Order: sequence, then structure tokens, then C-alpha cells
Amino acid sequence: MATSTKAYGVQSEKDNLKPMNIHRRDVGDNDVKLDITYCGVCHSDIHTARNEWGGSKYPVVPGHEIIGHVSEVGKNVKNIKQGDVVGVGCMVDSCQECNSCKNNLEQFCEKGATFTYNSKDKYLSGQQTYGGYSKSVVVDKEFILKIPTNLDEAGAAPLLCAGITTWSPLRHWNVKSGDKVGVIGLGGLGHMGVKFAHALGAHVVMITTSPSKAEDAKKLGAHEVLISKDEAEMAKHKNSFDFILNTIPVGHKMDPYISLLKIDATMVLVGAVEPLEPFHGGGIIGGRKRIAGSLIGGIQETQEMLDFCGKNNIVSDIELIDIENINQAYDRVVNADVKYRFVIDMSSL
Amino acid sequence: MATSTKAYGVQSEKDNLKPMNIHRRDVGDNDVKLDITYCGVCHSDIHTARNEWGGSKYPVVPGHEIIGHVSEVGKNVKNIKQGDVVGVGCMVDSCQECNSCKNNLEQFCEKGATFTYNSKDKYLSGQQTYGGYSKSVVVDKEFILKIPTNLDEAGAAPLLCAGITTWSPLRHWNVKSGDKVGVIGLGGLGHMGVKFAHALGAHVVMITTSPSKAEDAKKLGAHEVLISKDEAEMAKHKNSFDFILNTIPVGHKMDPYISLLKIDATMVLVGAVEPLEPFHGGGIIGGRKRIAGSLIGGIQETQEMLDFCGKNNIVSDIELIDIENINQAYDRVVNADVKYRFVIDMSSL
Repeated sequence: MATSTKAYGVQSEKDNLKPMNIHRRDVGDNDVKLDITYCGVCHSDIHTARNEWGGSKYPVVPGHEIIGHVSEVGKNVKNIKQGDVVGVGCMVDSCQECNSCKNNLEQFCEKGATFTYNSKDKYLSGQQTYGGYSKSVVVDKEFILKIPTNLDEAGAAPLLCAGITTWSPLRHWNVKSGDKVGVIGLGGLGHMGVKFAHALGAHVVMITTSPSKAEDAKKLGAHEVLISKDEAEMAKHKNSFDFILNTIPVGHKMDPYISLLKIDATMVLVGAVEPLEPFHGGGIIGGRKRIAGSLIGGIQETQEMLDFCGKNNIVSDIELIDIENINQAYDRVVNADVKYRFVIDMSSL
Repeated sequence: MATSTKAYGVQSEKDNLKPMNIHRRDVGDNDVKLDITYCGVCHSDIHTARNEWGGSKYPVVPGHEIIGHVSEVGKNVKNIKQGDVVGVGCMVDSCQECNSCKNNLEQFCEKGATFTYNSKDKYLSGQQTYGGYSKSVVVDKEFILKIPTNLDEAGAAPLLCAGITTWSPLRHWNVKSGDKVGVIGLGGLGHMGVKFAHALGAHVVMITTSPSKAEDAKKLGAHEVLISKDEAEMAKHKNSFDFILNTIPVGHKMDPYISLLKIDATMVLVGAVEPLEPFHGGGIIGGRKRIAGSLIGGIQETQEMLDFCGKNNIVSDIELIDIENINQAYDRVVNADVKYRFVIDMSSL
């Protein structure tokens, strides 16, 4: 059985987002239903709506930075109750049995995680999963995150994707107090990277092409700003970084950033899901340097991140919009014209 | 003071190697002099002789896989005595004081290691260091390696560069019994990678473009051979390797090899000191994979490798040549026509 629910989505890759009705499954024994209050706008939403990565199935209802209030729980749900403020991120299910799932890396589920939108829906046959641009959603209890009550709900929404995407590599690579950490790119991901690295006690250097972003970066917690186009400044920072979080969302030259790394240090890519420009093998051979990737984070790690945010009063800097302005918001995201994440007030739907 | 010594080298980048005389410093208090018995031929010798990496200063006397018998020691030398069989690898000095040197990573000396050839000579002002294509060499005791007495001297020579270059990443990335390890490229480096990975208990897969190399790879210790041009075979091995040692000496496509790595697994480049072809960011983001570099190894690690070789009776497979055939040997190295390393019998000089 299923319930008709109001949503916003696209019927084809050329379409603007418009109101539509979708089906949500009834609440099963292991399920939690939430009334969605806020949903962040991630660049992935746009890539999927516009089929820029290929593989989009229509209609697409985007949104994987979901905050809501629990309206109903199944009988096996013990630790979540009606009225709780909860979150849903990029995943709503996984096999729970493979090595990756057992190691709390559901994002790498060997059978393929069920992503929050545009994955095959295991419950409603013939349809794909629909994201958070809607009034409600029903999700397995294992994929429900608890939102610390002191956090602003709207500002917490982007933690579910931009937050965990930047938190996970900082933790996985053990960034610690005193480390010199570079964050490349000041967008939705980068601004969270700066906040987290600062909160972890690192000496944070914002690395950007735009001198105009220096002031903002410092307000967010950067101790220094390094303009990557300034070769003399780049040379001063050569071989000095313990870790670099690279949030550039498109292909780019890697050599200048690799040269900033210390011996044995790592640059992690979280943004560029596309071909990069050639890098010079000598740049990593000399200095035994590392380039790695990182993809969101597991559910346990996401909860840890949220708890850390609760303790340290960290949320995203956002611009709150009504759903009717989502198409203009998409255009502004594409032009990198947002500080630093749009969040939709879902009461406007 | 210095002593004239017979050697073989080039006077310019267009020159063939010819006999010449060079100066070696007199033995200082911390020095060891050795009569060179064997010297391996590394592709780096050719790059430097021909100035293919730029920066060569002439004359160039190549050779950094040096085996010799100790003929004289300085008064501060305690553990090395006349007649000992010793080795000299890619480095002959470093500052011994910086963080890298203190951490036994002399190859990354912050003041710049003194390499065995074509580095500034600290002792004989105005000249650069000259390598092992010569009758003798004088080296600081800290850069003298002990060669286990059970090893064939000629076969041991390539351990000083090809050996440590492949040993170091296998150890640094903790390759262990049962790991599935790929070795890409069956040349001087690759054949040592196969031997070491096998001896460390790994399940070794030789990854090569050449089906003709399958038999040889198995004789060297590979358990499987994967032909990288065979897309169906490559697909079968997708996401299955714990570690890949990439010895390809030129720029190449990385994506097919990245796809072979497991979650969190690493591919280490040791050969391609030049621009690589663009790789797809999604290939490392999905699976949190790593690409790293590695450069030879420190002196302590080189001694550990030699001791391991002594215990496990590991030497390189070589073709022994007289010095007068060195120019033909260079041409054959360039054409990858050697199994798997030329070693010069220095008694022929």
C-alpha cells in the first residue's frame, strides 16, 4: 500500500522543477515516517535532475539533505519516537550484510546502497526512490539520523550531505589539533570543511582562486587564506600541509596542490566526479605523497558528525528559500552564487 | 686530495659512454672505500646520461647499483672492515639532521640528499658526484650497505635501486600474507616486485599488456597473470586488489588499474616520473581509493631489504655484460629488451 504525497520534481532532463504527486510506502515494522520540514539543495540534485551524470530515471524528485519530525514509527523501532527531529541523508537502505555494511561503510555496500533518490525502490516496484523535495518520506530505521536538539533545523539540513562528505575524510585521515590543513574551494562543501577542520583544532588554510573570498573564509574559521593563482605565495607554502581537502567540483590541475603537501601527506578529492587534468607522477613519487577519494560517509559516522555538531554548535551557513524559487536557486548554484547552501522551507510546499 | 680513477661516462648528452678518468676523494675518518666489482644498469642512468630529465651536468658517470669489496676504512668506521662485501645505492650523503633524515627517510632529506651521481660533490669542489661505472668509490659509512654473504654479488647489485624501490612501498603499505597484490609491468622493477610480494606471502597477480610474459612472470613467483588489454578479464578482477605496485615507466591510463582496487586500497607509482593521463575523480571517490608515490627507500630500510634477501635467497635476474658493451645495453634497456637487469662486470674496465 502507498500514500499519495505532494512533491516537487522534474519529468524530464529539460524540465523545470514543478509540483507533482508521488507515492510513499506505508510504514512497515522497521520504518520511520517523517514530515519533512527542511531540505538542502545539493549540486548532485541538479546533476541528477538534468541527467548530467547519465542514468537519471524520470520523474526525478531530488533532495538528500532532509530534516523532519517523526510522525509514525513501525513496531520494531525502539529509539525513535513521534515528534523527534531526525535527518535522512544520501542513503535510505543497503544490504546490511556485506563486508562494507558490517564495517559501517554502507555507502560502499557491495550490493549497492539504495540512494535517497533515483535508486531502484525496493518496496514500490517499478518506481525509483524519491528525495526530500516533498511533504514526507518513509525510511528504514537504520538510515534515520538523530538531530541534536540545540541545532537550527534548517542549518542542520546540509550536514546530511555537505557535512558528512567533508567530515568523513578529515576523520578517516586523522586530522588533529595542530595539523596544517588546506581546504580548496569555498562552496557548500568547502565551508563545512573549514568549520570542521577549525573545530578539530587544525591550523586551517583556505585555498581559493578568489581574493574576494578571504574575509568570508576567515569568518568561517580559516586562519589563513592562500590565493592559488599567486605563484609566489604558493611557493611559500610548498611541502607544508599535513592534509588537503579538495572540494573543487570540476576537473582541474592537480600539480600545484600536490606540491603543497608534506612528505607522506594526503590530498582527498570529494568534489570532482569527472576526469581530472593530468598530474605529474614525479609530484607524488618525490615525497611519497597520496591522492585519495572519499564518498559521503557511513551512517554511524554521520551520527558521530551530527553529535559533534551538537556539542560544538556547528551548522551550515544557508539561504532559506521557498519551494517555488527552486529553479532560480538551481541557476544560482550552477553559478556558485550562494553562501553556502540553499535550504528549502518545506512548509512552502 | 684526490686519486685518479678509471671510469666510463659521457661528456655530453649526445655522447656514447667511453672510458675516462675521474677523481675520487681520499678516505676521510668517516669514509669507506670500495673496489667496485659489479654495477647494475638502471633506466635512470640512461635518462641522466642523455639529459632526458634536464639538469644533467657533464661529464656524467652513471651507476647507482654498486657492489664492491672494502679496500680501506676511515678511523671512525667500526662495523665495516677491509674485504667486506658492501653496496652503495642511489644516495651517498644527506644532512643527517633534518626530520626526514632522523626518520630514516634520507631520500627526502630537507636539504637535499646527495645522490650517487650528478649531485653536487661536497668534498671535491666544482665537480658533481660520479657513479659506479668506475673502479672504486669513496662513500660516507652511513651510506654503506652490507651485502649478505650468501647472495650472488652480481645479482645483488640491482637490489640497491630496483630492489629498494619496490620493497619500500610493499612494506610501507603493509603488504602481508594473503593479500591480493598486483604488479603492473614486468621489467627491472616489476620482476623484483613480483619476487618480494611472493616472498611476503601475497597472492601475486602480474598485470601486463603482453601475454608473452605470462610464463616468465609465473617462474618469478606470480600466481596469476592478468592481461590488461583483455577487458573481460579486467572486469573479473574489478574491486579485488588489496594493493597494486605500478612500475610502468611512462605516462599511462590510470582508470583501468584504479578500477581493480578494493575499497580503501592503494596503487603506488614508482616508475612514471612524468605526466600521467587524466584519471576520473569518480574512480577514487567511489571506493575511497588511493594513488600514492614512492621513491627508493631510506638506508635503514634498504639494509632490512638486503637482510630479507639474504634470508630468502632473493637476487635479481640479470644479464652480465662487460663495460665495453654498455652502449648496446642502453639501447636494449630503452627497448625493454632485457631480463631483467643488465649488470656490468667491473673487472672488464
